Amino acid sequence: MVTEKLDIRLRNPIPIKDSSLHVTKLKKLITTIEEHPDHLLGLSNRHVVSARQFTTESVLQLIRLAANYESFPLFLSRPLAGKILITAFYEPSTRTRLSFESAWQQLGGDIMSITDPATTGMAKGESLEDIAEMFNNYCDVVVLRDTHEDSVYRMINSLIVPIVNAGNGIDEHPTQALADMYAIFRWRPILTRLNLPEEQKIKVGIIGNPSQMRTVRSLLLFFSLFSYMVKEIVIINPDNDIFSEGQREELESSGLYITKTGSITERLRELDVIYINSIAWIGDTYERLTSDLKLSKDSPLKPDSIILHPLARGKELDVSLDKTPHNWYFIQARGALFLRMALLNSLLKTP
Amino acid sequence: MVTEKLDIRLRNPIPIKDSSLHVTKLKKLITTIEEHPDHLLGLSNRHVVSARQFTTESVLQLIRLAANYESFPLFLSRPLAGKILITAFYEPSTRTRLSFESAWQQLGGDIMSITDPATTGMAKGESLEDIAEMFNNYCDVVVLRDTHEDSVYRMINSLIVPIVNAGNGIDEHPTQALADMYAIFRWRPILTRLNLPEEQKIKVGIIGNPSQMRTVRSLLLFFSLFSYMVKEIVIINPDNDIFSEGQREELESSGLYITKTGSITERLRELDVIYINSIAWIGDTYERLTSDLKLSKDSPLKPDSIILHPLARGKELDVSLDKTPHNWYFIQARGALFLRMALLNSLLKTP
Amino acid sequence: MVTEKLDIRLRNPIPIKDSSLHVTKLKKLITTIEEHPDHLLGLSNRHVVSARQFTTESVLQLIRLAANYESFPLFLSRPLAGKILITAFYEPSTRTRLSFESAWQQLGGDIMSITDPATTGMAKGESLEDIAEMFNNYCDVVVLRDTHEDSVYRMINSLIVPIVNAGNGIDEHPTQALADMYAIFRWRPILTRLNLPEEQKIKVGIIGNPSQMRTVRSLLLFFSLFSYMVKEIVIINPDNDIFSEGQREELESSGLYITKTGSITERLRELDVIYINSIAWIGDTYERLTSDLKLSKDSPLKPDSIILHPLARGKELDVSLDKTPHNWYFIQARGALFLRMALLNSLLKTP
Repeated sequence: MVTEKLDIRLRNPIPIKDSSLHVTKLKKLITTIEEHPDHLLGLSNRHVVSARQFTTESVLQLIRLAANYESFPLFLSRPLAGKILITAFYEPSTRTRLSFESAWQQLGGDIMSITDPATTGMAKGESLEDIAEMFNNYCDVVVLRDTHEDSVYRMINSLIVPIVNAGNGIDEHPTQALADMYAIFRWRPILTRLNLPEEQKIKVGIIGNPSQMRTVRSLLLFFSLFSYMVKEIVIINPDNDIFSEGQREELESSGLYITKTGSITERLRELDVIYINSIAWIGDTYERLTSDLKLSKDSPLKPDSIILHPLARGKELDVSLDKTPHNWYFIQARGALFLRMALLNSLLKTP
Repeated sequence: MVTEKLDIRLRNPIPIKDSSLHVTKLKKLITTIEEHPDHLLGLSNRHVVSARQFTTESVLQLIRLAANYESFPLFLSRPLAGKILITAFYEPSTRTRLSFESAWQQLGGDIMSITDPATTGMAKGESLEDIAEMFNNYCDVVVLRDTHEDSVYRMINSLIVPIVNAGNGIDEHPTQALADMYAIFRWRPILTRLNLPEEQKIKVGIIGNPSQMRTVRSLLLFFSLFSYMVKEIVIINPDNDIFSEGQREELESSGLYITKTGSITERLRELDVIYINSIAWIGDTYERLTSDLKLSKDSPLKPDSIILHPLARGKELDVSLDKTPHNWYFIQARGALFLRMALLNSLLKTP
Repeated sequence: MVTEKLDIRLRNPIPIKDSSLHVTKLKKLITTIEEHPDHLLGLSNRHVVSARQFTTESVLQLIRLAANYESFPLFLSRPLAGKILITAFYEPSTRTRLSFESAWQQLGGDIMSITDPATTGMAKGESLEDIAEMFNNYCDVVVLRDTHEDSVYRMINSLIVPIVNAGNGIDEHPTQALADMYAIFRWRPILTRLNLPEEQKIKVGIIGNPSQMRTVRSLLLFFSLFSYMVKEIVIINPDNDIFSEGQREELESSGLYITKTGSITERLRELDVIYINSIAWIGDTYERLTSDLKLSKDSPLKPDSIILHPLARGKELDVSLDKTPHNWYFIQARGALFLRMALLNSLLKTP
């Protein structure tokens, strides 16, 4: 039985993926965005909690820096040598934690992980403010994920080192959404142009719940910084109550045109970018959209459209799509690493 | 709701705390203690299990080195590059673990963490001696926390790398107590002088249980090395049976004058240093002092007195004290990092 | 009570073990194996899943490199600086995890650990293929331990970085078995010679179950690469059904002469190498051999024989053997570190 498995994959060296196409696209993105490093200095010595803290220009410059890192990995220096990151994942998540830790280490820094809420002072009744005071002593940046929306704000009361919000309850997850924007801009670098011709504007479908999903909340806020490039945002969700109070109004006031449909097939054919996510964090646990909102290679997709998904995925995103050109979610996942490298390095840059 | 939170703390860079006062005090401490590095060489290649292993002079030299590290962080080199620390926290604790790991990494070393007893060989019945034999192969120093008093001694049977006791049941926690002494000496550097005038001697109050609290046990042992500076130690505890067998006699034989009161207010007004801790580790779990031994800004404190607490705190230490000059516990917590750096580096120093 | 413990072990520096004898033996091993680094280049950019992937020559060259690392630790450079290892231990194990992490760090690399299956995407239903896709982004090598035989093969479907199998269910544990071979060859370097005289050939006893124990399975496969040096392999096990289908035939076809006995004492006197292991992993849990297969210093051992055990041990291997010359299991454990260093470095070597 086992012997049969000793197949070609073990007999030969691991194939190296041809990434030359991606590098070409990344270089195009780098040349399309004009360099203005001063906008990154605006991030220096800051907390990163909400998509609302960013400007159109700071997002573009971050993406430009991320594209630089991704295109020229061998040119990376170790600017964070001697710096320490604490990843405090009170809501457990391996994917996001490893993404931040890998980003930090690739810039030369050291890491300390908190993966088990039961081992922390919190279990003994310690306050978040006191924990933050402790973090001040031990590290240079904190990355926090917590099931409670408020935790990151409470820590800020005591922190004198930057904190990055890696998911606070159902509220926001700004670095994930920055990675989403990076994925979109590397797909079509021309979208970074403020004077985008009408025919180049895109239609974006979002399968999910803007009031309950932090990744969707942050993403919509970033789209509102780039409303010039969006013809329409179609929320695909059979429920009626999908916006939190004032959410839709805030987004529309930025110039976004938002519509809603309950059927996944109705508008799919028109959409250039489809964002799908099935997991909503509710309090200390999560729920899946209990619906037939699913995508597969048989879905009626526009030929040159891309699919984004923050991962981990469930049945809503069928593996039959993995080998199609619609699969932009693996590129998105890989880009998240470089985007976080760009962000973390910017936080510690001294002007 | 969320938008309201995007307040001034997110709009502006993180304020940098003015630490110039502290640096001035630290420099005073450094100049007050005469340098005798040979006393640190006595720590080289040793286990650190009990406060009883230290001398007055080795404590002072450690504190001098810690003050040096804290005053001139930019002058830190990476003497532990290529060295590996294992933090084995079979009794879970994030604060102490991160303190050691941060100290080690700031000196350039690498770390490996054991945070979950259930994943270790112990769960399969492996002996501590065998685990120690394993540690010999993989690291240069072990830091151990365990609920059993004996574990550290059992590991020593097999170890050929130094082990640091980070809390063994109710017995001792010497590095915490060293950090407490560092906090006291940086408050009044003159206390390091053996020929201290009578009027400079201090009264120390300890709210806690000397027989059940390992931090208190170790601290009292360190005070016995500096009995010349202590006018009186007042144990504040309503119970009667608060010393273990021979403990009081051992301390008094060093010249300490020890009294006891059951009321927190009775003597508070006279005390220069108040040490408070509510958590006693009993076997595999912990208990809080179920009493009204609490401090707040309304407590009748002597004006220039300081409060120490090993943290994490509960209700016994009210946050209303945080912004008063009595708050010496945050300075104490920060200093613990540098004290551990001084100790860890001394363990690996070759004469 | 405690004071009594402040014994000689704390009053004096930690004794340094005299390892000169071992270094002499290691140098003998290095000179006995002729250097052919090209055989290690064959491991470059490969997965390591099964003992079946190795050749006699690649094993010898790995062992030679390990012996070099172990003999001259001060000559180690940091070839893996900037490289990241993920240790994914979905079946928890501290010993093996730390062994890989220490090996990687001693070569200058950084590590990220996954120790708790409950915190991973798998708990949310994420597929192994998707997790592997994530690992591609974050690290340079993956070390995997999982209770399911298939997991490592499923990950390979998506991986473009090397994976090392650190135990897949009851199937294999090739790096442990490589360490076992290293222990044997350093004991008698002459065994590396293909033209070994008949009287130098050894009898090997294996106390365990070849069908249920992954360490035994891999070890037997490595012995089949060196059948020229084995006079006889005696499986010591009272059960009848101890081989999986085709296992015995595959081993015998390599030239191994395999016998079986149910009694531990019957053949013990003749055996040169005794391998003992009591833990068999069955599905998600483990079982001990419920028998009186035990070794102690009173067992009728051949005078110059050695005992190997992958550790952690239970009662089957009595501590009374620890200070006898039969104790080769501590040397075996230490060597495992250097063997893994040799292997990991070879995986990332570019020809």
